[in-house]
Amino acid sequence: MERGSKPWGWGLPGERYPRNRLDRVLNLLRDRGIEVREARGPPTLPSPSPSELSAGEIEALRNITAVNVDGEERVVHSLGKSYLDLLGLRVGLPLVVTDAVAFPSSVKEVKGLVEWATDRGVSLVPFGGGTSVLGGLKAWKGRHKAVVTVDLRRLNRVKEVDETSMLVVAEAGIRGPEMEEALHSHGLTLGHYPQSFHFSSLGGWIATRSSGHLSGRFGGIEDMVQAVRLVTPRGEIETRSVPARSTGPELKEMIIGSEGSLGFIVEAVLRVHKRPVAKESRVLLFPDFPRALDICRQMVQGGIVPAMIRIADEDEASMILALAGLEAEDVPALVLLEFHGDKREVEASMRKAVSHWVKADAVDIGSETAELWEEEYYGAPYLRDDLLDRGLLVETLETAANWSDLQDLYTAVDDALVEVFSRNRIEGLVLCHLSHAYLDGASLYFTILSPQLPGREMEQWQELKEAATEAILQRGTLSHHHGIGIDHARWLRREHGEIGLRALRALKAAVDPEGIMNPGKLLEEGA
Amino acid sequence: MERGSKPWGWGLPGERYPRNRLDRVLNLLRDRGIEVREARGPPTLPSPSPSELSAGEIEALRNITAVNVDGEERVVHSLGKSYLDLLGLRVGLPLVVTDAVAFPSSVKEVKGLVEWATDRGVSLVPFGGGTSVLGGLKAWKGRHKAVVTVDLRRLNRVKEVDETSMLVVAEAGIRGPEMEEALHSHGLTLGHYPQSFHFSSLGGWIATRSSGHLSGRFGGIEDMVQAVRLVTPRGEIETRSVPARSTGPELKEMIIGSEGSLGFIVEAVLRVHKRPVAKESRVLLFPDFPRALDICRQMVQGGIVPAMIRIADEDEASMILALAGLEAEDVPALVLLEFHGDKREVEASMRKAVSHWVKADAVDIGSETAELWEEEYYGAPYLRDDLLDRGLLVETLETAANWSDLQDLYTAVDDALVEVFSRNRIEGLVLCHLSHAYLDGASLYFTILSPQLPGREMEQWQELKEAATEAILQRGTLSHHHGIGIDHARWLRREHGEIGLRALRALKAAVDPEGIMNPGKLLEEGA
Repeated sequence: MERGSKPWGWGLPGERYPRNRLDRVLNLLRDRGIEVREARGPPTLPSPSPSELSAGEIEALRNITAVNVDGEERVVHSLGKSYLDLLGLRVGLPLVVTDAVAFPSSVKEVKGLVEWATDRGVSLVPFGGGTSVLGGLKAWKGRHKAVVTVDLRRLNRVKEVDETSMLVVAEAGIRGPEMEEALHSHGLTLGHYPQSFHFSSLGGWIATRSSGHLSGRFGGIEDMVQAVRLVTPRGEIETRSVPARSTGPELKEMIIGSEGSLGFIVEAVLRVHKRPVAKESRVLLFPDFPRALDICRQMVQGGIVPAMIRIADEDEASMILALAGLEAEDVPALVLLEFHGDKREVEASMRKAVSHWVKADAVDIGSETAELWEEEYYGAPYLRDDLLDRGLLVETLETAANWSDLQDLYTAVDDALVEVFSRNRIEGLVLCHLSHAYLDGASLYFTILSPQLPGREMEQWQELKEAATEAILQRGTLSHHHGIGIDHARWLRREHGEIGLRALRALKAAVDPEGIMNPGKLLEEGA
Repeated sequence: MERGSKPWGWGLPGERYPRNRLDRVLNLLRDRGIEVREARGPPTLPSPSPSELSAGEIEALRNITAVNVDGEERVVHSLGKSYLDLLGLRVGLPLVVTDAVAFPSSVKEVKGLVEWATDRGVSLVPFGGGTSVLGGLKAWKGRHKAVVTVDLRRLNRVKEVDETSMLVVAEAGIRGPEMEEALHSHGLTLGHYPQSFHFSSLGGWIATRSSGHLSGRFGGIEDMVQAVRLVTPRGEIETRSVPARSTGPELKEMIIGSEGSLGFIVEAVLRVHKRPVAKESRVLLFPDFPRALDICRQMVQGGIVPAMIRIADEDEASMILALAGLEAEDVPALVLLEFHGDKREVEASMRKAVSHWVKADAVDIGSETAELWEEEYYGAPYLRDDLLDRGLLVETLETAANWSDLQDLYTAVDDALVEVFSRNRIEGLVLCHLSHAYLDGASLYFTILSPQLPGREMEQWQELKEAATEAILQRGTLSHHHGIGIDHARWLRREHGEIGLRALRALKAAVDPEGIMNPGKLLEEGA
């Protein structure tokens, strides 16, 4: 995250989740029998062991680019924002700390770093916004003697705006707000708004195949990336800037999702859109979550595709309504719709969408709760910190499946998690919402809340993660938009099969034969 | 193509291009100073040398699947429908003939063939509809002692229709009409209509990343394929049937476009659509081709996206109008629009589109010429045979580029080809149309017509191909939807760069280390 951000949590030190809403959440949790402990203050950062790099090596690095070897800077750059990252600081799990942090300001400097690391046998971890929720930023050395984390924040220029082709060329370190600001002056938008929008970077979005909440209108990052430039230990790949092509396997699609394991994503050509002038949101109450999935399917397959659709199940609906200070009883499902575009188009689409839902027994409760929703979308990671400080496990999981599998998938994941709660004789809550609806299926997003098991925090997480993932893999994908990192790596073989994984590993070996790029994640299953 | 199809041309023996329209084309060519020679009859097929496979080996093959080693069957399966394939038969270029043709009827039989070929060191060429226009079906042995062509026509079942998820699971050998017929009984369509629709197969569409003329509504095959199953020499890859995922580099995108070089595409899960109930077409005359590209861009970027858009330049417009028996003078550009969908939607969209063009000085000439167009779309490959028989070179080239490069690309390719005509002191005609319009760019499709240079037919083609490709690669992609095959292989490094090509080759080596799959094409630059 931004320099100066909280190492133990989300956002800048002055930023907090609003107290009044926090109290509502804590009350709801207590009402559900979930133990909320006394808040502990921010954890102390561990003191890193000395850098494995010699003074001469650091000097050599400094001849290539800006380098920082301060202890705190090294610690901050050795963590992402996964539950395990944040839990680790609170309960004192061992932390591997990077040996140096480099801040290249040009592609040339990135290339210099890669050459230096190849020569010296040093691993490199690309660092964008620092918001990975799957351990993708851990400073693992792999089989090498040291590791340097490479923070790309200075590679943040918009290099070209081609208004004719509706394309922008930007460097990978640019963050969400910087990108949108640069485009707004041209009346354009990228339209990529993941929950980490304010902190995460273009390179990180591409590296993790991320999706934002307006994917119904703008697609996922894989739809936005027209071409991409990657610096690998064996040289550079720059895919051709063309709208479509039939020239063999699609190279661009090998770089999107590569999570730093092939090289540094340094630049991309992105498809941009005219900035929508109008936006309308609406919230509806619905009597049945599984049926709501089906009504959503019919709407999308019938050609009504909102910029955003979210359908919360009963537990998540209760949480949203409680946050809004509303009574939360008897709301089995809550539907949130949002359309963006020109005014007439937005109004007509919303009219059609609302009528589709109302015909199926939904009750339109207007747009107020929707505004709260957007605040909550960006606020939830801050809330997580407050809950962690009170001894709660807070983890999120997401997947996608075909429509015909979605209801069973929902039940299976819920059942699997409840079974773990019950085995551990502990209360727990599983919230779920649908997001990212496609013609053929949709994504489901689960939030797990439960008191931590003192002394068994790590095992508790592992049990829940394993149970949910096994249930997910029966019908869905290992990840819809979070990626693989470390937390999912052991299941990647199940996603792609033996030969599929072999093919992906061959790709890595071709461009990174020494394995210096982000060892132990994605394709490597631990290090 | 279908068993019993003409080896020396397009379609079944009884099928011909209509004589009255052929005469119009010949007249137009003569008017343009292009020499049309006396028609020669169909060429004699070469007699193949004996199969390199021993009787024992053929027996072993027969224990796996149905096998044919007849000379004519072997010759027919050693050719596609490229200009060089068809020219070769007419002027007697040497033809490498496959050693046997196998007809597996199950995935198990395909696996058996692959195992057998791996053990024996025999190369395999996957054969779908036999319509490759780039030499992708040549029976090259690579470094092996023999080659077997594997015709997948018997793998043509629709295995499952999931109406809830709008997905169909089909085997790779299914042809266009079979696929649409199976889907129509469910009120569904795939919507993939390449020019080869009646003959080409699902596996071939996927292997070449093909696009059909309704891509504006249904996308290219890469948008339709949700999951795919590939049998490689090292085992099977079956990608997960899910709507979207963030699980590393996208495996599916490595199989799409693989042109038989990684293994056999045996099955796919495809996104299907409700069959549109209405269709409307319109033709407009426009005073300026380069400006028409810009008007098209504004239309598409303004949200009006026809199922099909074609914009013919002056020479192609003349040809279309001549075929329709209309006067062909002073029509610098001809615009063809088609919308598919429900009746009201189609009418409203067409109204908006026509008004957009009319405001920019287009003249609406109704829908009659559009109906002719569809006939011509499927008829053109038949016409090519008649022109080849009359000593004409007929080649097509296609590319795609960003909108800001499109006008320069058009001029550069045209200039490059005219320069070759003039160097060879021969008349020639270059027709061009835009098709497949995207938000960021579009495809341009060129047709070259010129009298063959007797005794220098091959060199003449090479000079034209080289000149056009060099011009294309300044701004566009090597291919928008035809693929690479043999004809484009030498330029693939220019498309993907040194390291990109190395990555693709590593992928192949991982699943086909002995190099038995379709040697000498795509990634191998000749054999």
